[in-house]
Amino acid sequence: MKRNGPPANGITNDGMEGHHGQEQLTFKFYRARQRWRNDVQKSKETGWKHTSLSGDEVKTMYGPTDLEKWDYMHKLGFPGQYPYTRGIHANMYRGKVWTMRQFAGFGTPEDTNERFKYLLEHGQTGLSTAFDLPTLMGRDADDPLSEGEVGVCGVAVSSLADMEILFDEIPLDQVSTSMTINSPAIMIFAYYLAVAEKQNAPFEKLRGTLQNDILKEYIAQKEYLFPPRPSVRIIADMIEWCTDNTPKWNPVSVSGYHIREAGSTAAQELAFTLADGFAYIEECLARGMDVDSFASRISHFFNAHIGFFEEIAKYRAARRIYARRMKERYGAKSPKSWTLRFHTQTAGCSLTAQQPENNIVRTALEALSAVLGGTQSLHTNSMDETLALPSEKAVKIALRTQQVIAYETGVINTIDPLGGSYYIEALTDKIEAEAEEYFEKIDALGGVIPAIEAGFFQREIADAAYCYQQELDRKEKLIVGVNEFIDEDEELEIPILRIPKEVELKQVERLRELRATRDQAKVDETLATLRIAAQEELNLMPPVLDCARAYVTVGEMCRLLEEVYGLYEETPVF
Amino acid sequence: MKRNGPPANGITNDGMEGHHGQEQLTFKFYRARQRWRNDVQKSKETGWKHTSLSGDEVKTMYGPTDLEKWDYMHKLGFPGQYPYTRGIHANMYRGKVWTMRQFAGFGTPEDTNERFKYLLEHGQTGLSTAFDLPTLMGRDADDPLSEGEVGVCGVAVSSLADMEILFDEIPLDQVSTSMTINSPAIMIFAYYLAVAEKQNAPFEKLRGTLQNDILKEYIAQKEYLFPPRPSVRIIADMIEWCTDNTPKWNPVSVSGYHIREAGSTAAQELAFTLADGFAYIEECLARGMDVDSFASRISHFFNAHIGFFEEIAKYRAARRIYARRMKERYGAKSPKSWTLRFHTQTAGCSLTAQQPENNIVRTALEALSAVLGGTQSLHTNSMDETLALPSEKAVKIALRTQQVIAYETGVINTIDPLGGSYYIEALTDKIEAEAEEYFEKIDALGGVIPAIEAGFFQREIADAAYCYQQELDRKEKLIVGVNEFIDEDEELEIPILRIPKEVELKQVERLRELRATRDQAKVDETLATLRIAAQEELNLMPPVLDCARAYVTVGEMCRLLEEVYGLYEETPVF
Repeated sequence: MKRNGPPANGITNDGMEGHHGQEQLTFKFYRARQRWRNDVQKSKETGWKHTSLSGDEVKTMYGPTDLEKWDYMHKLGFPGQYPYTRGIHANMYRGKVWTMRQFAGFGTPEDTNERFKYLLEHGQTGLSTAFDLPTLMGRDADDPLSEGEVGVCGVAVSSLADMEILFDEIPLDQVSTSMTINSPAIMIFAYYLAVAEKQNAPFEKLRGTLQNDILKEYIAQKEYLFPPRPSVRIIADMIEWCTDNTPKWNPVSVSGYHIREAGSTAAQELAFTLADGFAYIEECLARGMDVDSFASRISHFFNAHIGFFEEIAKYRAARRIYARRMKERYGAKSPKSWTLRFHTQTAGCSLTAQQPENNIVRTALEALSAVLGGTQSLHTNSMDETLALPSEKAVKIALRTQQVIAYETGVINTIDPLGGSYYIEALTDKIEAEAEEYFEKIDALGGVIPAIEAGFFQREIADAAYCYQQELDRKEKLIVGVNEFIDEDEELEIPILRIPKEVELKQVERLRELRATRDQAKVDETLATLRIAAQEELNLMPPVLDCARAYVTVGEMCRLLEEVYGLYEETPVF
Repeated sequence: MKRNGPPANGITNDGMEGHHGQEQLTFKFYRARQRWRNDVQKSKETGWKHTSLSGDEVKTMYGPTDLEKWDYMHKLGFPGQYPYTRGIHANMYRGKVWTMRQFAGFGTPEDTNERFKYLLEHGQTGLSTAFDLPTLMGRDADDPLSEGEVGVCGVAVSSLADMEILFDEIPLDQVSTSMTINSPAIMIFAYYLAVAEKQNAPFEKLRGTLQNDILKEYIAQKEYLFPPRPSVRIIADMIEWCTDNTPKWNPVSVSGYHIREAGSTAAQELAFTLADGFAYIEECLARGMDVDSFASRISHFFNAHIGFFEEIAKYRAARRIYARRMKERYGAKSPKSWTLRFHTQTAGCSLTAQQPENNIVRTALEALSAVLGGTQSLHTNSMDETLALPSEKAVKIALRTQQVIAYETGVINTIDPLGGSYYIEALTDKIEAEAEEYFEKIDALGGVIPAIEAGFFQREIADAAYCYQQELDRKEKLIVGVNEFIDEDEELEIPILRIPKEVELKQVERLRELRATRDQAKVDETLATLRIAAQEELNLMPPVLDCARAYVTVGEMCRLLEEVYGLYEETPVF
């Protein structure tokens, strides 16, 4: 149904099928625009640099001419339909409000178990587990390198015994649990499965997500153990195993959060994250798996930074890019494989130690952007997170922030409320184009792993972070209370949660007891099987699950795999 | 340049000049829409009532067909151009960020003077004065009816002597000052002028705003003294006087804030407020004044309630309606007369005494809506305002909220960022149409004053408030911490500002001394002149200013005018 009339005022009227962009704009329009441009020229300027948080040019105003040849059906379509720009479900939040999922974990498993129950009582709808640094690095609580870090930034879990306490009285067939864990994700997941077995909760009923995105560790967060190739292989093992055994579980949440926290732009976060996810998918396809058998269980995790509109456009572009790639490049046939589902966390790096109550404001605005962008799940940071672990009160305010947005503001009443806005649509297109450019660069480098090895991502992020820091130094960008509106005489008034030294002693003692009482023959046997599986590149899930059941510790399994795979060392970036 | 091709799919393609609405939509579109509708039918529903805060239906999704025959130039145009939907300035916040104006006032004039200086030091860019209840009701601090209220909800001002202290060391030719005062507005303004004279600040340099909108008092807030007709006449006196003497001063800020706080819908707030403003304009026109001589100094004041998008649409509709009316009905020729400038305050009625930190969240979201709607000036409520007068710390967080929005989120980079959104444009049109319907009803009743006398506004608002209360009672609408997510064991932890009894004693003592030491002959003489002016319907500004200079009190002037005009008594509404 294209019409190919003569161009009007130099604007072609191709793309007439859509909605925006049928540029039959009149002389009246162009005359008014010229007058407006003249007026802007004559107007005074504040002198602020009007770039986005990511440093992109933002025009003074967006209008119809910014969406030339823009086609509604091509760009947006309908919610729950390809390319899903407006949302992945036909009725979005009218059908289900996003999952309010506060990341929590500190101290002993008992401490975190109590916090979990507190959050569930106050209306949280999903659990999200933070592990301590030793656990994240695959070290047991009694490892000499763990000293001083046990239970400090998350909960300490060294074995199934800890996991049993962590989920005590929480029925695993009824909650949805997210776990932020990467190198040792397979062990932690195995512990979770073993707890489920003890609760008689069937595997097929388990709902939740493992972060388990190791590629972003090489790119940004640097919490890796093994080199990229065996690490990606383990993830594919888990995807494969989950496809057969835990159909409601998300074996990997491809994570942009930490890429952004490391200082990337919005477009870098988007492009690098999606590229990582595509790498896992390609690994699975290379094994001969059917894309539609597993793609629907891959989820994503983005940052909600303080640049309000850029974030909304980022989420919308993410859905569109993902749908196209899954359908066109990977040949997925099932609409479920085309839809990008994502969790969002507000930006920790946007919060300030100064005037911590201002963080409530930042988090509220960031959370709103995630919701307007159609997130499926949300963690809102607590105001005190730059200072310490969040206190109970601060966590509650953060949760209430989500509830106010969901139940008071009315923004959930209609789907993709900003759809059609000249600015939002132009920005969505722009961020999409920037991401596509990055994909080409990554392809040219031979894919994600070679690009990591060449330091490509690390350099791009470092450059972006440097530019932003310069803008702050020159006060072209402001952070309230940090480089402007500073309170010289500020005194910290909010209560701080501190982890007592006893936590470490308790965990070390518990582990000593475990080692003394468990069936050592079983431990040795299951570890031996694991070694063979690793050496022969068999799927590691079954032997790891057997190790878990035998109370083998995270550290024991990780040291064994290190012997087989080696440890990764990054090539420095200059 | 209209094209009149054949209708496509039953949709006419009239209105082709604009942008949205050229409905050359394809069969593909309609097929997809039908499929989406079927999917929505089949989808589960949360069961929430998906109406706006004002109780209006909200569609599941908005798209191109919601803007049929919508014409860009007719509906939006360019910023700084008729009909100003996208904003009143060509470059909006790129030229000047809105004025951050925290309403403040409590205790003695000394107390408030100190708070003013605190706010100016922390980056506030304009002053906004809250007066105590006695002052608002035209009673002196030593009036028996004032007992217990002096300095409690605002600053106590009975005479020029108080005003001199209130603005001590604040150069009136350099700040912009807003004063919330209605029946005694003329006296308070005269005091301000007299202080300026003493500072040698020329009248023509004074910048600021008097609330001075008495009609909304009859409609909503009920703080009136005299009947509507002489009250409106006094306002016209002030508009006339200011036109000649204080060209940068806004003699009246037509206020919807209190109408909304009384429980109105967004459309009622918009319609009733604009109707009140039109009544003042018509009063001035009836005196033979040239509309372009004064219209540009009339400003407006709206509420920013928690219904996010409704508020944004309300501000955009307000500008469009106002521009049309000023140009088309009142024949204003100057573009300055067409532009609706407005101050916004976040909704006090949306805040809760429970879990007061949640109010930081509400206020942030409300403030964002005001900014996205193009406000010129903003007051953000402090989290403790439902409990007491705001503490210094709470006020600072509220101010920081504005600074985070202005300087961190990037929302000021581009003008009217939501322009073109299907939902926002459809909602703007809808709210405009609802307001126009109200104008017709008011006209049918003979205008604003007869409608007040008939109880029309009061009844409409009471009905809306009743509906909302029922929705809360039935939990169809939620307020976090009030009818859901309640903390049973909550303990109030934020510090509370209380006004000591000494304030009243001090003010009474000061007034006693004033009465004993002022030139009583001058007092009697200026009061006698005022009486004659009131009786003969002369402009009251000159005699009131003379009274002010002679240290005549608010109470003395108000009692005299009551003798001439009588006191208004409302006809009860059933």
